[in-house]
Amino acid sequence: MLSFSDQPEAFLPTLAEFVAIPSVSRDASEEVMLRAATWLRDRLDFAGARVETTAGHPVVRADWMSDSDAPTILVYGHYDVQPTGDLAEWRTSPFDMVIDGEVVRGRGVTDDKGPVFIVTEVARAFFEQEGFPPLNIKFLFEGEEEIGSPHLAEYVQSHADDLACDLVISADGAMWRASEPSLSLMSKGLVSLSIEASGANRDLHSGRFGGTVANPLHGLAELLNTLHSPSGLVNVPGFYDGVTPLSEERRRELASVEFSEQEYREDLGVEELYGEDGLSTLERLWERPTLEINGVEGGGKYTVIPHLARAHLSARLVPGQDPARVIEAIVTCVGDFTFPGLAFTVTVDPGSVAAYTIPVDHPAIRAAHSALSQVYPDQTTLMTCIAGTLPATTLFESVLGAKTLFFSFSTADEYLHAPNEFMRIRRFGEGLRAWEILWRSLADGPHRLT
Amino acid sequence: MLSFSDQPEAFLPTLAEFVAIPSVSRDASEEVMLRAATWLRDRLDFAGARVETTAGHPVVRADWMSDSDAPTILVYGHYDVQPTGDLAEWRTSPFDMVIDGEVVRGRGVTDDKGPVFIVTEVARAFFEQEGFPPLNIKFLFEGEEEIGSPHLAEYVQSHADDLACDLVISADGAMWRASEPSLSLMSKGLVSLSIEASGANRDLHSGRFGGTVANPLHGLAELLNTLHSPSGLVNVPGFYDGVTPLSEERRRELASVEFSEQEYREDLGVEELYGEDGLSTLERLWERPTLEINGVEGGGKYTVIPHLARAHLSARLVPGQDPARVIEAIVTCVGDFTFPGLAFTVTVDPGSVAAYTIPVDHPAIRAAHSALSQVYPDQTTLMTCIAGTLPATTLFESVLGAKTLFFSFSTADEYLHAPNEFMRIRRFGEGLRAWEILWRSLADGPHRLT
Repeated sequence: MLSFSDQPEAFLPTLAEFVAIPSVSRDASEEVMLRAATWLRDRLDFAGARVETTAGHPVVRADWMSDSDAPTILVYGHYDVQPTGDLAEWRTSPFDMVIDGEVVRGRGVTDDKGPVFIVTEVARAFFEQEGFPPLNIKFLFEGEEEIGSPHLAEYVQSHADDLACDLVISADGAMWRASEPSLSLMSKGLVSLSIEASGANRDLHSGRFGGTVANPLHGLAELLNTLHSPSGLVNVPGFYDGVTPLSEERRRELASVEFSEQEYREDLGVEELYGEDGLSTLERLWERPTLEINGVEGGGKYTVIPHLARAHLSARLVPGQDPARVIEAIVTCVGDFTFPGLAFTVTVDPGSVAAYTIPVDHPAIRAAHSALSQVYPDQTTLMTCIAGTLPATTLFESVLGAKTLFFSFSTADEYLHAPNEFMRIRRFGEGLRAWEILWRSLADGPHRLT
Repeated sequence: MLSFSDQPEAFLPTLAEFVAIPSVSRDASEEVMLRAATWLRDRLDFAGARVETTAGHPVVRADWMSDSDAPTILVYGHYDVQPTGDLAEWRTSPFDMVIDGEVVRGRGVTDDKGPVFIVTEVARAFFEQEGFPPLNIKFLFEGEEEIGSPHLAEYVQSHADDLACDLVISADGAMWRASEPSLSLMSKGLVSLSIEASGANRDLHSGRFGGTVANPLHGLAELLNTLHSPSGLVNVPGFYDGVTPLSEERRRELASVEFSEQEYREDLGVEELYGEDGLSTLERLWERPTLEINGVEGGGKYTVIPHLARAHLSARLVPGQDPARVIEAIVTCVGDFTFPGLAFTVTVDPGSVAAYTIPVDHPAIRAAHSALSQVYPDQTTLMTCIAGTLPATTLFESVLGAKTLFFSFSTADEYLHAPNEFMRIRRFGEGLRAWEILWRSLADGPHRLT
């Protein structure tokens, strides 16, 4: 067993350095992104880590080989973070990580800098205490996960031999909730797009032109309103193509998962949950695709008829759905919608991702289950789905032929992508121990990978 | 006859000084607003002008009395301007007035700094060339017109004796179009409000929570979509209370106004106009109330379910509609709307205004018609409506017992409230001459006011 400090003071100041680099992949400068990549490389210097350029933000790579007979794993994670959103909603400055009771707060602490940091520290412990890793470990950390990994595919394809492995282990992909450990057997896919409604050639005085021309915000509201039926289903013909209806067996499985609708509601502060009629909350969350309006913008608080309005949408997909078909269905649906004097155009974002699955009896799932049982001896590990999207998984499967195990110690309630993102401090200690056990058990014993 | 330079170079640089003061009443500092007021006061120094404080931005007042037997007019206008909107849409810097061919461009040049400037220059010409005005003139320029004149009522009420007059002449209130002069017999009223839709207590990851909670943007779109019926009518019970149906006579009058739908469409760059079914464009513009969505905001281009979404709306009212009743109708309509797990709240903006009318046979209308006929001898003066709102008019009628004549040389197509606001340079010369004739004819002759 490795020895880890159980004092947060020993490792959190180092994580704070990582969080302090505002590596918002959507809008940070190249210099900032390189700084974050370099920080991560330095953290794995003993493993020969290096920063490699891509057509976008760089990746951090390392190959820390133990024994040519040992199995080889590829550890994946990302050093980029989401935009902060409205700064006024943050209780503390997003890039100034603070310890607040049992949590640390800051942009990226749980998605994905904290979970990545656990991996680098486990590796350092092996290096410092044993001199070498228990199995061959390759590291691949990207800087574009939060913008849909637009250049990862090209990188992985052109470095497929270097990245060859028996299993990918993702430090990204939060556990479902904090009350017990969980392993995810599925992650949803993602497509995203924007719809622009345009009317006149300029913003118009709402009095002097009111009643004569269509208002893009009015037309856009009507269009957005057509995208769901009153029963909560997505009302886009073709959207559900390929989706397997929920089996009675799966419904029984999900019904047996302990889940308090009341606690869920209370945590979110809503009086009522909402979704497709006739399904439970877990069924909707884990088994059904969704289409959400992520943003709308147009005009403002002044008396105009704006000439433009935009909506940003994204769909989360389940196994069986083809992202290209979903996009086509939405584009067709918008194309069929008309409003006199308005034009609607769709811009599809690059980087759509299909859903991903790993079988429950895969050796990696069994090894991970065993590791979690040792770290959480009093709790049952749940088999769940990640309703979020991890674009790298389908890529690794198709190019490297390797399944991906999600092994993050983030939890889904930690305000990922939102203001006041945080991570529970105890999860760092649990994660360090679990990664150590996982690596050892994949290398040797009943769960040996190959 | 007064002598005016017909060279724009003689007066436009002075107007540029006025435009350069960014007196955006919505968000400018007190210092900036005072600077604009002071500039205007200095322009009327010969008339004893002064800046007077209010609970909001100051007013500029002057009393330039000629003869106690002469009629007394109160000239109204405003020195505040609208926000610039998106700076990227401006071809030139909004507060740096530029001459561009036959127009001047800049925020406020036509609403209302240019038209106010015409008045100050006519008055200066009387002072410099004749020494005194042709009738008693009081000036009242406010700094809050673009935010609904929230403190004008209090000011006028507490200074009713000082402001006593036989007629108000407004330098605000653009003519309908540039092709011929027009006089307005009506201006629409205005109420404005915001609707906030709130869901969870924070922005949520659209994957990790998708399918379980209502999206405020989705609910807001549904609500906004209910506010109009497919026929283009406002679908708010009670909204049309008090509105007189269009008479056959009025429909015939409007049908006789030369109006090219094609030119109107081409100017706006739309393929089709839009509004209530069964009415002509002019009928909808001049005779019917409207409800417009001026802005929507919520979330953004990232994969969240936002926890808040807001819409800003305003209604333009016609004679017969009670603003308080319209607000009540909208509040009730929003209150009756439900969406599971979402809450909707309405915030009504202060400063609602009823519609205003002046009879076609009022002496001021006859005098103005005569003045316009002399300045535009080859054109027929149209009798129109101002679909915009001039909050001061109903106030002057109720407190001072005086009707308001709109006598502006702005035209409605000059991008009022929008980027690239402009004013036609020739209208300055036409306006100077027309104001001179109007003042003289209200003082003496067949159109003498009292």
